[in-house]
Amino acid sequence: MDEAKLKEILEAVRAGGLSVEQGFKSLKHLPSESLEFACIDHHRRIRTGMPEVVFGENKTAEQIAGIMKSLMRDSAVALATRVAADKAKAVCENLAGLIYYQESRMLVANEEKVAVNPEARGTVLVISAGTSDMPVAEEAFITARCLGNPVEKLYDVGVAGIHRLVSQMKLIEAATVLVVVAGMEGALPSVIGGLTGKPIIAVPTSVGYGTAFGGIAALLGMLNSCAPGVAVVNIDNGFGAGCMASAINRA
Amino acid sequence: MDEAKLKEILEAVRAGGLSVEQGFKSLKHLPSESLEFACIDHHRRIRTGMPEVVFGENKTAEQIAGIMKSLMRDSAVALATRVAADKAKAVCENLAGLIYYQESRMLVANEEKVAVNPEARGTVLVISAGTSDMPVAEEAFITARCLGNPVEKLYDVGVAGIHRLVSQMKLIEAATVLVVVAGMEGALPSVIGGLTGKPIIAVPTSVGYGTAFGGIAALLGMLNSCAPGVAVVNIDNGFGAGCMASAINRA
Amino acid sequence: MDEAKLKEILEAVRAGGLSVEQGFKSLKHLPSESLEFACIDHHRRIRTGMPEVVFGENKTAEQIAGIMKSLMRDSAVALATRVAADKAKAVCENLAGLIYYQESRMLVANEEKVAVNPEARGTVLVISAGTSDMPVAEEAFITARCLGNPVEKLYDVGVAGIHRLVSQMKLIEAATVLVVVAGMEGALPSVIGGLTGKPIIAVPTSVGYGTAFGGIAALLGMLNSCAPGVAVVNIDNGFGAGCMASAINRA
Amino acid sequence: MDEAKLKEILEAVRAGGLSVEQGFKSLKHLPSESLEFACIDHHRRIRTGMPEVVFGENKTAEQIAGIMKSLMRDSAVALATRVAADKAKAVCENLAGLIYYQESRMLVANEEKVAVNPEARGTVLVISAGTSDMPVAEEAFITARCLGNPVEKLYDVGVAGIHRLVSQMKLIEAATVLVVVAGMEGALPSVIGGLTGKPIIAVPTSVGYGTAFGGIAALLGMLNSCAPGVAVVNIDNGFGAGCMASAINRA
Amino acid sequence: MDEAKLKEILEAVRAGGLSVEQGFKSLKHLPSESLEFACIDHHRRIRTGMPEVVFGENKTAEQIAGIMKSLMRDSAVALATRVAADKAKAVCENLAGLIYYQESRMLVANEEKVAVNPEARGTVLVISAGTSDMPVAEEAFITARCLGNPVEKLYDVGVAGIHRLVSQMKLIEAATVLVVVAGMEGALPSVIGGLTGKPIIAVPTSVGYGTAFGGIAALLGMLNSCAPGVAVVNIDNGFGAGCMASAINRA
Amino acid sequence: MDEAKLKEILEAVRAGGLSVEQGFKSLKHLPSESLEFACIDHHRRIRTGMPEVVFGENKTAEQIAGIMKSLMRDSAVALATRVAADKAKAVCENLAGLIYYQESRMLVANEEKVAVNPEARGTVLVISAGTSDMPVAEEAFITARCLGNPVEKLYDVGVAGIHRLVSQMKLIEAATVLVVVAGMEGALPSVIGGLTGKPIIAVPTSVGYGTAFGGIAALLGMLNSCAPGVAVVNIDNGFGAGCMASAINRA
Amino acid sequence: MDEAKLKEILEAVRAGGLSVEQGFKSLKHLPSESLEFACIDHHRRIRTGMPEVVFGENKTAEQIAGIMKSLMRDSAVALATRVAADKAKAVCENLAGLIYYQESRMLVANEEKVAVNPEARGTVLVISAGTSDMPVAEEAFITARCLGNPVEKLYDVGVAGIHRLVSQMKLIEAATVLVVVAGMEGALPSVIGGLTGKPIIAVPTSVGYGTAFGGIAALLGMLNSCAPGVAVVNIDNGFGAGCMASAINRA
Amino acid sequence: MDEAKLKEILEAVRAGGLSVEQGFKSLKHLPSESLEFACIDHHRRIRTGMPEVVFGENKTAEQIAGIMKSLMRDSAVALATRVAADKAKAVCENLAGLIYYQESRMLVANEEKVAVNPEARGTVLVISAGTSDMPVAEEAFITARCLGNPVEKLYDVGVAGIHRLVSQMKLIEAATVLVVVAGMEGALPSVIGGLTGKPIIAVPTSVGYGTAFGGIAALLGMLNSCAPGVAVVNIDNGFGAGCMASAINRA
Repeated sequence: MDEAKLKEILEAVRAGGLSVEQGFKSLKHLPSESLEFACIDHHRRIRTGMPEVVFGENKTAEQIAGIMKSLMRDSAVALATRVAADKAKAVCENLAGLIYYQESRMLVANEEKVAVNPEARGTVLVISAGTSDMPVAEEAFITARCLGNPVEKLYDVGVAGIHRLVSQMKLIEAATVLVVVAGMEGALPSVIGGLTGKPIIAVPTSVGYGTAFGGIAALLGMLNSCAPGVAVVNIDNGFGAGCMASAINRA
Repeated sequence: MDEAKLKEILEAVRAGGLSVEQGFKSLKHLPSESLEFACIDHHRRIRTGMPEVVFGENKTAEQIAGIMKSLMRDSAVALATRVAADKAKAVCENLAGLIYYQESRMLVANEEKVAVNPEARGTVLVISAGTSDMPVAEEAFITARCLGNPVEKLYDVGVAGIHRLVSQMKLIEAATVLVVVAGMEGALPSVIGGLTGKPIIAVPTSVGYGTAFGGIAALLGMLNSCAPGVAVVNIDNGFGAGCMASAINRA
Repeated sequence: MDEAKLKEILEAVRAGGLSVEQGFKSLKHLPSESLEFACIDHHRRIRTGMPEVVFGENKTAEQIAGIMKSLMRDSAVALATRVAADKAKAVCENLAGLIYYQESRMLVANEEKVAVNPEARGTVLVISAGTSDMPVAEEAFITARCLGNPVEKLYDVGVAGIHRLVSQMKLIEAATVLVVVAGMEGALPSVIGGLTGKPIIAVPTSVGYGTAFGGIAALLGMLNSCAPGVAVVNIDNGFGAGCMASAINRA
Repeated sequence: MDEAKLKEILEAVRAGGLSVEQGFKSLKHLPSESLEFACIDHHRRIRTGMPEVVFGENKTAEQIAGIMKSLMRDSAVALATRVAADKAKAVCENLAGLIYYQESRMLVANEEKVAVNPEARGTVLVISAGTSDMPVAEEAFITARCLGNPVEKLYDVGVAGIHRLVSQMKLIEAATVLVVVAGMEGALPSVIGGLTGKPIIAVPTSVGYGTAFGGIAALLGMLNSCAPGVAVVNIDNGFGAGCMASAINRA
Repeated sequence: MDEAKLKEILEAVRAGGLSVEQGFKSLKHLPSESLEFACIDHHRRIRTGMPEVVFGENKTAEQIAGIMKSLMRDSAVALATRVAADKAKAVCENLAGLIYYQESRMLVANEEKVAVNPEARGTVLVISAGTSDMPVAEEAFITARCLGNPVEKLYDVGVAGIHRLVSQMKLIEAATVLVVVAGMEGALPSVIGGLTGKPIIAVPTSVGYGTAFGGIAALLGMLNSCAPGVAVVNIDNGFGAGCMASAINRA
Repeated sequence: MDEAKLKEILEAVRAGGLSVEQGFKSLKHLPSESLEFACIDHHRRIRTGMPEVVFGENKTAEQIAGIMKSLMRDSAVALATRVAADKAKAVCENLAGLIYYQESRMLVANEEKVAVNPEARGTVLVISAGTSDMPVAEEAFITARCLGNPVEKLYDVGVAGIHRLVSQMKLIEAATVLVVVAGMEGALPSVIGGLTGKPIIAVPTSVGYGTAFGGIAALLGMLNSCAPGVAVVNIDNGFGAGCMASAINRA
Repeated sequence: MDEAKLKEILEAVRAGGLSVEQGFKSLKHLPSESLEFACIDHHRRIRTGMPEVVFGENKTAEQIAGIMKSLMRDSAVALATRVAADKAKAVCENLAGLIYYQESRMLVANEEKVAVNPEARGTVLVISAGTSDMPVAEEAFITARCLGNPVEKLYDVGVAGIHRLVSQMKLIEAATVLVVVAGMEGALPSVIGGLTGKPIIAVPTSVGYGTAFGGIAALLGMLNSCAPGVAVVNIDNGFGAGCMASAINRA
Repeated sequence: MDEAKLKEILEAVRAGGLSVEQGFKSLKHLPSESLEFACIDHHRRIRTGMPEVVFGENKTAEQIAGIMKSLMRDSAVALATRVAADKAKAVCENLAGLIYYQESRMLVANEEKVAVNPEARGTVLVISAGTSDMPVAEEAFITARCLGNPVEKLYDVGVAGIHRLVSQMKLIEAATVLVVVAGMEGALPSVIGGLTGKPIIAVPTSVGYGTAFGGIAALLGMLNSCAPGVAVVNIDNGFGAGCMASAINRA
């Protein structure tokens, strides 16, 4: 609720177009009965085109189906993340109109309603180190796309294939923001950060064993990167990286 | 080595002003004697306006003075971070022309040569939770400014003063990117992420005691933020946050 | 051994119905053969109305059924926590009269004998951040109820729905003590602690992934909360939170 | 800002007693320019009698003196915690009217204005295991007292002196809430929790060496206490324990 | 190589039966070329009556059966620890003469040959806090018994049943060494250490959840025990505790 | 409260010297005289010859002197551990009759009253790996001696000097219990445990750097020792090891 | 891009065969051909005889079969590590010509093409402490063999069998490099390092329980080894140890 | 006891100059009274040319001087590591003939007696990432040199200067073994491992802040390196790296 709207209500009250009781209700019966917050929240949702998201890991197929069904009534895209294949199958049998992306374990509703955000400044490029990092990379990729961003991908360019990375500098320089996904020692963001000045969102993955500690080694490697222009999200958090990339890519 | 310089050499070779051998040496004897990499590196430097930076924590005053002196010969701005007050005093006594920012413990050379980057898309806003977080916030602030960004600050708006934060929503909405600095439980980025869709660079600080574990609690809080659009840098890494903000703020 | 029983023995000794030696044995051969401690322990049990509790996680269905059966002979309510659904089914097939709460994975015996404790000062309000936190929240809720407290619940009011929280301030202000259950970064107790002066028992849950570290991030967030008036129990320990809330809610 | 106040403004606007602009300002120029939040915040402060608190650890004597001076203009009590003795001396030389408690390292202003809160339900009892835990215990004690609670103390009753603890059961049973402070293995809250049903706020201290890990062993011991009715605050956080105890002790 | 053998070689050299070169080789190429060690090792085995032990956790039923079969040819008792019930069944189907203790998951061969060690000074008493700790306690119990010690047990005497512990002081005072098994906060050894001067071997178990961290909380509690006369073995290491108790119990 | 006292009360009740109400009070108000516990405690002290011990690390010279003075009035030996040299000097200037052992940083009072405990079964042998481990080894040595044990020492026999260890097997075999002190990887107890069946109390020290993590590497090495018959005390806890050795060495 | 190629371009520019613009493009678009890096990479592969390796843990049987098939077209050996038995079976059913080593869980293609590297300086000796360490030891063994090294093995020579180790000193002294595999406290490399000056690659395994922490105890033990000449690889990383041994064993 | 000495004794026995009993004693009463071990140890020392080393961190200047003095009587080189400058000064004032290397904090005696080991296969190359890593790199460098290896250094070639690294490939390819020293994210060994097949000893340093955790981030990065042919030593352990490099570099 901005200043203009607030004054408008007050003027309507003054002018008698709104009774005190009506004016009170206009202020009180905002969705959350909390004008300040609700407005801000509402504006944020409109402005960012942020879809509703369901974290599917700890939910049953029934719960996911129920929430997705209610979300699908809205016109906007809706996502469910971390939905295992069998759970996804059960959801889709109960609810038509969903797309399941197996690699990224995402269920998407109303994806056909996604359009490239006119405020998008450029392209989000998702880079991954190894084939084992692909599920996380794909989660970032699909999230960014569902949020209305042009997206590109460049997978499997870890240390063993660093020459391929160098050969793709044009793709890198053409992007507005990079999402770099890597497990094990997580050195890829440092190396890319040494080749470009683009903002890099580093995503550690839980790929590795022993002292990889389920992604901690990669996380620490990324947090301690010598390269400036790197920031990090949670381990395996492709979704969060896609959201951050989208936020950066908006005008 | 930029495009112009490279073409100039080639033209001199073509015109005969440079022999092939001389042209080869011009290319070969670049600072790094490594054409491939140097070019990339050089391009990055020009493009990003990234200054030379000296990490002062483990260096003596003599070492810092020596490096800064050599850097000052170049026209660009140069920074030294984590320089304790007494060390800074010793450096400044030996080397004229430096500015010392006590709060952020930074030494800056050639700051007068910094101009707002014409590619800057907007303003970098640095927000901090408590007064104890100020040194880190200031490091981010000065870094972003030295990198040619318009910068604003909004300090001391933690949980106790969250109403002040809400009252500054205009400032927040006017920024292109937010740097949010907090210690203890590090909840501020989550709260701000609930109020705006702007990209947030979260900086955990080592402020706190006991289970704050020198910033780990804040770091984990930020990495696990429910709010999308948050990415994190190392504990107390104001410099890195300033660089990331600058990268995001470039067109 | 309560006061009445002790006096009865003394009177029998005085009256000669019990010889000194017999009186001595009556006192010595108390269940625990430890007058001192048993009294204290017994008093505590009467005073707090604390039910017998079986930690079901590492016990077989047979063990649980056996213990519950023996507990049911007493008049008081008895609880078994962390009983998986299939184990609960096996227990109930062997033992009549139990109620199984699937969400909280609790088995309750003699629940019909629970009455609101006349010493209860008010209402225990259980708040949870997300739907995934519900099992833990329910464990707290049912525990507090079985301990004779009026209880209310307010679920799914995390960061995304904070306006709903604000809209429920009356419910919050009407409570004597709040149990706040949250996973991930665990910021909800801090936010609620900024809105009210009620004592808050914060319960971190193991919900989240990667650096959530099975609840450690939430735990640290809660321990480092800027808000005064927050204390914390073990990860996923809804039972302990319910007990603490009950202790606070007694006169 | 409650319903009545909001309607009153609207009626004044309708009646013309307030112009639209004035009405807008009434809503906008609330202390925090954020009606919802500011009100809540204001009410909380009044309701809880929570004093202003300065965390002194990372602040200079000048900073502490400056903040305390401004706080002292208000009538309420003001605290600064974690103020080392030499820093406190420097503050007191610059600012009259402060009391310094050396053991707890606290500076208190306007303490003479503290009165026992009429809403206090009973006494806060602070118990400590060893003499090395006293600074933390004292911080809890003075905090609770400054918040208007009747307070008692029972120090140095660890394992070696557990008989003294048992001999003080009357003191324990007479309290409304217990703050139990212990380092090393932190078993004291478990033992006391076995003797009484009073709510216990456990405070781990950093006392110990080796695997005490600066209080982590005590913290874990307390979080895993078998005794129900125990909740935990941060390591060495006597201040937080005092606040929590005060919240519990209010009607 | 004992003294006799060494002298024999020297005498053969003296007598000319061995040349100097041959004598040199005899000394250099001793069976294992390691007389010292082999002897010592042999002596240790005889002296301690230490049985052969197979760590069954990572071995197949076939591997366990094979090793046990070869061990059974010797006259001494042989143990296999951490053998899951189904694996034990498979072993026993292939190999007669084994006893399987389900609670402790141990397979014992030649147990009938165990006699009380005449050097045993007294009784080993195994105490456990809760029923969930029984598998570990039983492993200690059976190990100590197989090593020729008189053994007693006292189970389920944790905090809730501490009066039962006190009532069993005679049993405790009659023992030579105590093995105390506990999970969660692991406070039981501290409490027992406050009641007796007997040497206590504390065994943390992985019982608990959340911040019990699979036994770390109990381990730290035990390592930081205020009570002198407590030493600790690995988490869930009932076998090691039984061995240590046996070593202490020998004259 | 022993049997005699309890019967005395009962007889007084029977005889009418005490009314039932008075008898009840005599039993009820015992807790404050706490005979039960105090007796046990007293017996333990007498039985174990356990001296009073002051943990000096966090105490001032004044506090240490005060406590030692009061302890010296008793006839028994009294110890203060972890007393830095300058602090010890200050204590000794104020209080005559103390001995200060610089290496172990211990202050001992009434040491002349220590006699070898007639119940001591044999000798306590303290073994250390390196010269840097000596302060901890000495703390164990002096503690065991002050507790009335015959003691021997064998220092500096780590990996580099393992042949010296082997050459001292007689000393080892002559001991009743071994205290083995080592830092870094802490392998010495494993190696000694491979050479003898004597009970070994392993003491990890904080000697080492980097991943020694202040003694954690040594602690873990010792807890995971393949050799049976090893139990562990806290890092640098020479005092605890001396007490445990003394408990083992008593009949 | 080597010197020759660079001069060639310059000469073509000079001679007019290339315009300045074309010359510029030749130099500028090199990054995408990235010859520098590719060459280096290629040389490395040729020089080291390093086979292609597939990390099988997170890949499906289909993925592994697909990659192996494409690798088998090359003449060189190809490895897949961490392939569970059932997965391996599925791969082998789809793809002929693979050998599956069950113990080490490796799939090898084209193994018949492996010849002993003529540059191999000697033998790689793989030593393991216990039978449970064999899978990791075998992974190192087969890796080193596939890389063209003569290999020997010496298994099951932990603390209990150290005399066997000593008896095999000839084998040890005959090797060029030792791979030492151990779990639990990981002391074996220290002990071997005390017996020989050969370079030791220590491999911690996840064998053990409780505070073995999945190999961390062994890792720390090895990193803190007193013996010089020891370096460590990741937990369970037999493959990496085999590669490092091979690198050391080359001339 | 070397071969010559042993044969000499045998010959004296044969010749009758020594009785069998005397011969036995000669063998038994060897310095270490442990023939086997002493021999092995002695052989190792001769074979490896390993100098005596004093770990100076926890020793006083007096202790260091005393040990060095006794070591200097032998002809071989002797080292003391981790000797702070002021301590070194005190040592040198008491003992002539020592060289102090300030950067690496090492004291060296008899360095003039070091000759290049004829068995050295090539050159040890020490590479460091940043100037802050120099002390550790120098420790490795001087250690390797004192052990008789030809040594080269290549410092300050971290991510920012990776082009310099590439330009020095000849130096790298000319070495037999590489010691790579890096702090922060520790990615340098991975990058170098991608450029060469030489064996790499990675040394993490404690350089960095926040989540660098005193070298843990670098350590984990190195342990999880994708590049095969990398093994790791303890944090800041330049000495160990120099020893390992020397072991590898011997024939």
